[in-house]
Amino acid sequence: MAGDEQFKKVDAAKLEKLVAAIYAGLGVPTEDANLLGNALVDADLRGVNSHGCRYLSVYARNIRRGGVNLQPVLRTVRDDGATCLLDGDGGLGHVLAARAMKTAIGKAREHGVGVVSLRNSQHIGALAYYTQMAADAGCLGYTTTNAGIVMVPPGGREKVVGLNPLSWAAPTARPWSFNLDMATSVVAGSKLGMAQERGEKIPLGWAVDKDGNPTDDPQKGMEGGILPLGGPKGYGLSVMLDIMAGVLSGGRFGRGLGSKGSAQLFQALDIAHFIPLDDFKSRMEELIQQIKGSALAPGSKGIFFPGEIEYNLKQDRLRNGLPLDAFVRGEIKREAESLGLTYDIEL
Amino acid sequence: MAGDEQFKKVDAAKLEKLVAAIYAGLGVPTEDANLLGNALVDADLRGVNSHGCRYLSVYARNIRRGGVNLQPVLRTVRDDGATCLLDGDGGLGHVLAARAMKTAIGKAREHGVGVVSLRNSQHIGALAYYTQMAADAGCLGYTTTNAGIVMVPPGGREKVVGLNPLSWAAPTARPWSFNLDMATSVVAGSKLGMAQERGEKIPLGWAVDKDGNPTDDPQKGMEGGILPLGGPKGYGLSVMLDIMAGVLSGGRFGRGLGSKGSAQLFQALDIAHFIPLDDFKSRMEELIQQIKGSALAPGSKGIFFPGEIEYNLKQDRLRNGLPLDAFVRGEIKREAESLGLTYDIEL
Repeated sequence: MAGDEQFKKVDAAKLEKLVAAIYAGLGVPTEDANLLGNALVDADLRGVNSHGCRYLSVYARNIRRGGVNLQPVLRTVRDDGATCLLDGDGGLGHVLAARAMKTAIGKAREHGVGVVSLRNSQHIGALAYYTQMAADAGCLGYTTTNAGIVMVPPGGREKVVGLNPLSWAAPTARPWSFNLDMATSVVAGSKLGMAQERGEKIPLGWAVDKDGNPTDDPQKGMEGGILPLGGPKGYGLSVMLDIMAGVLSGGRFGRGLGSKGSAQLFQALDIAHFIPLDDFKSRMEELIQQIKGSALAPGSKGIFFPGEIEYNLKQDRLRNGLPLDAFVRGEIKREAESLGLTYDIEL
Repeated sequence: MAGDEQFKKVDAAKLEKLVAAIYAGLGVPTEDANLLGNALVDADLRGVNSHGCRYLSVYARNIRRGGVNLQPVLRTVRDDGATCLLDGDGGLGHVLAARAMKTAIGKAREHGVGVVSLRNSQHIGALAYYTQMAADAGCLGYTTTNAGIVMVPPGGREKVVGLNPLSWAAPTARPWSFNLDMATSVVAGSKLGMAQERGEKIPLGWAVDKDGNPTDDPQKGMEGGILPLGGPKGYGLSVMLDIMAGVLSGGRFGRGLGSKGSAQLFQALDIAHFIPLDDFKSRMEELIQQIKGSALAPGSKGIFFPGEIEYNLKQDRLRNGLPLDAFVRGEIKREAESLGLTYDIEL
């Protein structure tokens, strides 16, 4: 990461309002614009900068060029009780995804489990946002999406596999929930873009160049391809996630994904249909203490659960400000000024 | 791997009958003994030797010392339509698991999805055996189990995380199904045991010794701990799988797992509740051709799907014999002879 001097801290609540105002200014209905503002700033607060406000202008450009249906009719193609298939009508991914997860949670309440397949959707940002909704509702939450075809399979040298992520979340008795949100690659694709923006090199082992050779140049890595986590395992996971998100939904998958949109799967499992939620949380606490209470490696700052560091960072940033780098501040400023919006944060 | 001279090829059908006869001789009901024979030999046929007949005497010893309930009453603790919680009454894991997945498939037929949580179970062997049942029934199959606490979390130096695996399977239009079956570690735990039996070293990066230092000695690695796949990702996945299998079921989890048994989760998603199964298979074929038809890396023998190599190996071994190493042959021979069983394969 480059020097701290390029970072400036802003007030998260004010930033969220500005982001929402920008999208509203672009024609997004107020409620949807508010959700987008909340989701993007939440990602930044949790330290998932790769899926935060650095996407603001990506989505804005997509809206301007007519790539998003701002008044989508979310159609239920089929509903069989515990499962349903939705068609997102090319709407904003975050908005569709939040509604799909809400539907999955409702189904889980009634049937124990709810699975919602969503096609004709778009980029939905950080998956943890949706699985957290499920954890907050006393469910095990699961989300996957298909994503850009930027990964090279074992034995290949061509980008033919999506950098498909998954997220799983579970409630705990602590202030934070268990929340794992991970790409099936060695590294998130946006981290190559961030390294490039900042003029930084990437570690060897993240990507290969067009000829299949290891590279530390983010540009060459993007031209070549990103490597799957642990070779066959990350490759296998990634393909399965596209099967669940893309193939099953009847929507776009694999190389057909293009930039026209993507597909997702949302699942909620209502814990109370198995054991009482309080028992579950007590048992989670026992698991947490077993692991966090175990002996530390020399020099270790502690053992953390997925979602714990992100929660701690969010609390700190809500109190002390959210650091944004020069690139992201520039993007926000440009979008705000192009719409004639005033703002009371330092960009 | 040691020299090929220690391997001898046996007839798979005869071996399966012998394994079933051994378990029947130990008091396992015929139908259950047949299922065990089929499951163990299937793993060996698919090249998953770590979960094949090398477990024969592990299970046999457990039966002899009274660690298994051979006449379990599989109790439905709760059934809510699409979900249910089963108590396995300490029975044989393979038998309970097959029944649990069958239940999940039945629920999926009716509700679109079926989730079955199973506690008071035991080691269930290779997960692919159960997810394949779901794929054969036109479902996306998913299984996870908690397993031995042999993994060291990031930041720690103590074994506190289970080597919990997952499997996902999906039908295709090809003779093989997509079937991913993977541990959340860099390597399956049994591979350390196999290396030790054969007097081989292990690659650096598989495990650490008791002080947290990298080691190539399988014994020291087993004393220290195995590393999670990709650090925080494999660690996070592993913990989530124990949450799903152990914490949710009300059964054993984490350090409480001991050698007394484990817990699992089985899920089937009926594809026809989303899109017609034939459409799904056509779409799978398109995905398969996209990936398998892409450019190969120099020296590559091809790009394979999870489950494809295993299927090809099985066809070859059914025709030409199943190679068993000296250790496994010795174990089978000892068990057969201790029960006074005759056999017509060369052990």
